[in-house]
Amino acid sequence: MNPKLQCLRNKMSSLNLQGMIITNPVNIKYLTRIEAEGVLLITRKENIYITDGRYIEELHSVLTLYDEVIVYDAKDLSIDDYENFFMFCENVGFEENHVTYSQYKEFIRKYKINNFVETEQIIEKERLIKDEEEIESIIKACKITDECFSYIIKQIKPGVTEKQIAKKIKNYYEEHAEGESFDTIVASGENSSKPHAVPTDRVIQQKDIITIDMGCKINGYCSDMTRTIFVGEVLPEVKPIYDLVLKNQEQTLKEYKEGANTRLLTKMVENDFKINGQNLIHALGHGVGLEIHEAPYITYRNDCLLKENMVVTSEPGIYIAGRFGVRIEDTIQITKFGCINLTKSTKDYEVI
Amino acid sequence: MNPKLQCLRNKMSSLNLQGMIITNPVNIKYLTRIEAEGVLLITRKENIYITDGRYIEELHSVLTLYDEVIVYDAKDLSIDDYENFFMFCENVGFEENHVTYSQYKEFIRKYKINNFVETEQIIEKERLIKDEEEIESIIKACKITDECFSYIIKQIKPGVTEKQIAKKIKNYYEEHAEGESFDTIVASGENSSKPHAVPTDRVIQQKDIITIDMGCKINGYCSDMTRTIFVGEVLPEVKPIYDLVLKNQEQTLKEYKEGANTRLLTKMVENDFKINGQNLIHALGHGVGLEIHEAPYITYRNDCLLKENMVVTSEPGIYIAGRFGVRIEDTIQITKFGCINLTKSTKDYEVI
Repeated sequence: MNPKLQCLRNKMSSLNLQGMIITNPVNIKYLTRIEAEGVLLITRKENIYITDGRYIEELHSVLTLYDEVIVYDAKDLSIDDYENFFMFCENVGFEENHVTYSQYKEFIRKYKINNFVETEQIIEKERLIKDEEEIESIIKACKITDECFSYIIKQIKPGVTEKQIAKKIKNYYEEHAEGESFDTIVASGENSSKPHAVPTDRVIQQKDIITIDMGCKINGYCSDMTRTIFVGEVLPEVKPIYDLVLKNQEQTLKEYKEGANTRLLTKMVENDFKINGQNLIHALGHGVGLEIHEAPYITYRNDCLLKENMVVTSEPGIYIAGRFGVRIEDTIQITKFGCINLTKSTKDYEVI
Repeated sequence: MNPKLQCLRNKMSSLNLQGMIITNPVNIKYLTRIEAEGVLLITRKENIYITDGRYIEELHSVLTLYDEVIVYDAKDLSIDDYENFFMFCENVGFEENHVTYSQYKEFIRKYKINNFVETEQIIEKERLIKDEEEIESIIKACKITDECFSYIIKQIKPGVTEKQIAKKIKNYYEEHAEGESFDTIVASGENSSKPHAVPTDRVIQQKDIITIDMGCKINGYCSDMTRTIFVGEVLPEVKPIYDLVLKNQEQTLKEYKEGANTRLLTKMVENDFKINGQNLIHALGHGVGLEIHEAPYITYRNDCLLKENMVVTSEPGIYIAGRFGVRIEDTIQITKFGCINLTKSTKDYEVI
């Protein structure tokens, strides 16, 4: 059996969980590489994926014998088949965050489940720690992001619009990777003061500050990087803000390691910002994997410890309403005694 | 109050429903034009949208006083506020297909709801019948789709790939509309035998048959059209299949009107296909609106009647495994005594 499914089975057995219905498509992809519409059943003896005719052919090219996943076309299953899957299970787990209330009722009826129990994100917890293959994919996605950044700064000049820059980044990722991992942010001038700006038709001008938040996917795994760059010159009022953000971003890289506390890391940046009359108005970072935002969340609200082979971001930012903003972000692999910065584009003043 | 919210309140009152929590983002958009992350509450006296800081500013430009929707930032709401919203409601409805099991439990706890009841898609049922403004948006989306089709057939020649054609359609829609309403299908040669083909790097050749399934969005409303075209010539084995599909597609346009039965319409095409040794392997059509696929579904499994100002597709297709396929689809407005075909691109043999 593939190691991720085996690992889930071990976890289930330690929780005395006898069966499980998996509905979160990201978790199904994580466990089996399957990207389709369907449901994964972990029964006492078998791993079963139920889908429809559209996907059957494709699935046979994704799955190997080694996966030990049996694929069924839903239309070939009888009422009895459904009732038999969990026949001897005293309990069956489900993903309470990825089952609608209707599905919940339907599953109980269809599979004749007596004891249907919440599983509190057991698979998401497995996904926190990346294995070698996952990290390799993220490293590749980060490398392509660095290359895209080198490419795009040569394309930016007064006269082009935010939308045009974002489109070029998107095209680059479609050509060199599996596309964007999220909608690219290109926020120039006063637009850069909005942390979640959407690219507009604003034309890049001399003396502009531009925040670019970008990432791509490789084998389904994401990269995430933000750089704030300058057109022509760095304005004097921007320098101290940029320096403050950068100082803190680099400080976090020194602190990110196994055992570091997500709340304290955030507090550290918040405090230094406050001392300097600024505020951290969003999270310091988040996990990166099959999803662009996943656990662990690095905020003052989350009190947990970083562990070896988590992949997370550090992205402090300062936003001066109506004027400008600065955010600097890397994707980072946590190690036992420190961390490895996977996005390597320069963080010095980049003046184009 | 805006008429769509008023209409929902009338419906709720006829069902003796005293409050409702709306979580389906498409339904929220339908009722309020809001596109954000949040929850819409219909309380005894007020319409309340709860969101977060990211969207507040934008919402004030979308909503008017006339909408009578009060917007709250979730972080400004206390435990008491939540408990007060439905204080005097004997029951509160929810959207059982758009609430996770976790949310379901959370809502009951947070809003202190005693009697939380399923609402069986009451808003989706309102959305079945389009008003003038909605139909106008769909008409525009269909017109741009016709224009895009005229544009694209001039771009197709031997040597270009399916992916390149799909990309040009996507770009056209991004420039002239709000982008694609779904991933464009361009399926050439033997690929056209797959109803859900994804564009590949296959190069267009002389004598190819090409199925193009395309649509865009205007004001959030979709268009949907399929044409099957030919490169150089129409092969003799293809002609009878094309003629059979077209004959049936045109026959449905004669039958589509208020009172027509979705099951019988499908049976009519199925029977004629069978008489000619072929099969209809998918639905005959579906509703089109804010979603590209929505109710009413026109299949033998759905026994309902078409009504004035429903907007639906008719898309019979025949697929000869491993050889070729033909599908012809229009977006159609149902009227009292007939229908109006909103996609007007030619259905004669289009040889390029």
